[in-house]
Amino acid sequence: MNRLATDEKFVFVNEVGPRDGLQNQAAHVTPQDRIEFIQRLLDAGLAGVEVASFVNPKAVPQMAGAADIMSALRALIDDKQTQAQISVLVPNMYGYKAAQEAGAGIISVVPSATETMNQKNINMSLEETLATSCAILAQADKDGVRGQAYISVAFECPFEGPVGVQQVLTIAERLTQAGAKEIIIGDTIGAANPLQVKNLFAKLTDIYPPSFLSAHFHDTRAMGLANAYAALECGIRKFDSSVGGLGGCPFAPGAAGNLATEDLVAMLHQMGFTTGIDLNKLLSIATFAGTLIDRKIGGRMTAWFAQSSCQPAM
Amino acid sequence: MNRLATDEKFVFVNEVGPRDGLQNQAAHVTPQDRIEFIQRLLDAGLAGVEVASFVNPKAVPQMAGAADIMSALRALIDDKQTQAQISVLVPNMYGYKAAQEAGAGIISVVPSATETMNQKNINMSLEETLATSCAILAQADKDGVRGQAYISVAFECPFEGPVGVQQVLTIAERLTQAGAKEIIIGDTIGAANPLQVKNLFAKLTDIYPPSFLSAHFHDTRAMGLANAYAALECGIRKFDSSVGGLGGCPFAPGAAGNLATEDLVAMLHQMGFTTGIDLNKLLSIATFAGTLIDRKIGGRMTAWFAQSSCQPAM
Repeated sequence: MNRLATDEKFVFVNEVGPRDGLQNQAAHVTPQDRIEFIQRLLDAGLAGVEVASFVNPKAVPQMAGAADIMSALRALIDDKQTQAQISVLVPNMYGYKAAQEAGAGIISVVPSATETMNQKNINMSLEETLATSCAILAQADKDGVRGQAYISVAFECPFEGPVGVQQVLTIAERLTQAGAKEIIIGDTIGAANPLQVKNLFAKLTDIYPPSFLSAHFHDTRAMGLANAYAALECGIRKFDSSVGGLGGCPFAPGAAGNLATEDLVAMLHQMGFTTGIDLNKLLSIATFAGTLIDRKIGGRMTAWFAQSSCQPAM
Repeated sequence: MNRLATDEKFVFVNEVGPRDGLQNQAAHVTPQDRIEFIQRLLDAGLAGVEVASFVNPKAVPQMAGAADIMSALRALIDDKQTQAQISVLVPNMYGYKAAQEAGAGIISVVPSATETMNQKNINMSLEETLATSCAILAQADKDGVRGQAYISVAFECPFEGPVGVQQVLTIAERLTQAGAKEIIIGDTIGAANPLQVKNLFAKLTDIYPPSFLSAHFHDTRAMGLANAYAALECGIRKFDSSVGGLGGCPFAPGAAGNLATEDLVAMLHQMGFTTGIDLNKLLSIATFAGTLIDRKIGGRMTAWFAQSSCQPAM
């Protein structure tokens, strides 16, 4: 986070392909292949990578082997082979403890903003999810682990429809008081429009410094970059994205396609921001990630690079 | 234009599929099929349609039959069967006169912002192109024809690179003095980023009312909607787009894909703007337009509608 504080042109890109991207794929990628995927991302200069979910492998078999992945990366961190922020998702206290034992230094909790989404997603009420999330954040604080908190379906819920700004602010306040070091606003089903993004982040930045906030967009309805631009205009400098647009949400109907990291990075570089990311390496990782799940993936920049005879400096 | 003046939530969408969309296709669509395409667009509620280019059919055979198309539409206008703004492109005074004889009430000239692009596109110097454009605009003014002026490659030229804001302002001033009733800023090769869009339209709206300005974006590098949002934030309320993303620029290497009308309209409706457009009809027209050129086309909203089980109100 130091670079965010000292370089106003720096944007922190947090790659979520190895977790959010792979968790709903038909193909199950081995932990060893996921480690290689992550190492390639680190080599391409990603500032952060969400590497695993400490969820029950019976519920989400795609995420089996989280402890092996985290342990391998812990060794890289300890050897100072990477300075990237390696984070993992934890759905409950059991998952948190397993993550901590495996050496996770950054964990994220993921409550949804609505009652129905929490029920459908993890079979818990909103109040139960928030209580669990807050307990994990408080424990992480005691343990010296950085606890981050997503607010999922923060703009629209597939079951309840549009989510009110006040609902998000109330949840954000509670998570912050519990010890969250960062609030990540998730447009989990890719339903937000840039005006909504502007309105919500304008309210949030009235309360919190922009460096406390991050944005997670999907490109389901083609508005991923428009939403990222709207958040940038509000001062947000940290974004989730997924190489090749890998992913979606397995529990939310109509959700498909995270914002592609290469599309985001190309826009950021063209706008004069720095990310530390090698865009050419990123494009080849999109191809590699496609081989892991046996289908061709790629953001729209991938198609453009493939057909373009004049490639601008990035 | 009256609705733009009286309804602050109204956005004028000018469909350019029948001209910009078809002019570089391998398949040549007959004038009769193009008339049907245009009639479907009018039925879907488009506020404006660019219907033809009065260019030499030997140079651009795809646009042959412009006079037949304009005459057929003139009859619709005279019978008050449509109130949409029907416009045509004219590259030179010969084309202008042919357009006027065919009954065109709105014509557009299309100078490019750079010396090299004018040379490569129409084998004329920038000065020659501007002189021709200004002569046409002045003649249109005398004839009671509404003359509009594009400024093509206004952000980046495929031959000269980034285009300076001052260059665009100087050209806009000259076209305005010659009698242009509207200046349309064209990102002909889809190279603009939203920060550039914001910077250029901020300067333009310092000089001209937003209602005098329009924006023409391509989605080549996935930034079409982000750029449209940046222009909306500057007060721009008139946009070109092409159903199904049909088109590109035949003379500019690396250019492909106009901003898809269905993507733009979906974003506008979700943001609370009105367009008068029936989005479902628009999506079926994208399918129809694909049959005209024997390939499947469609903006990203088309794919989303096809796979989505939960379709929001638009």
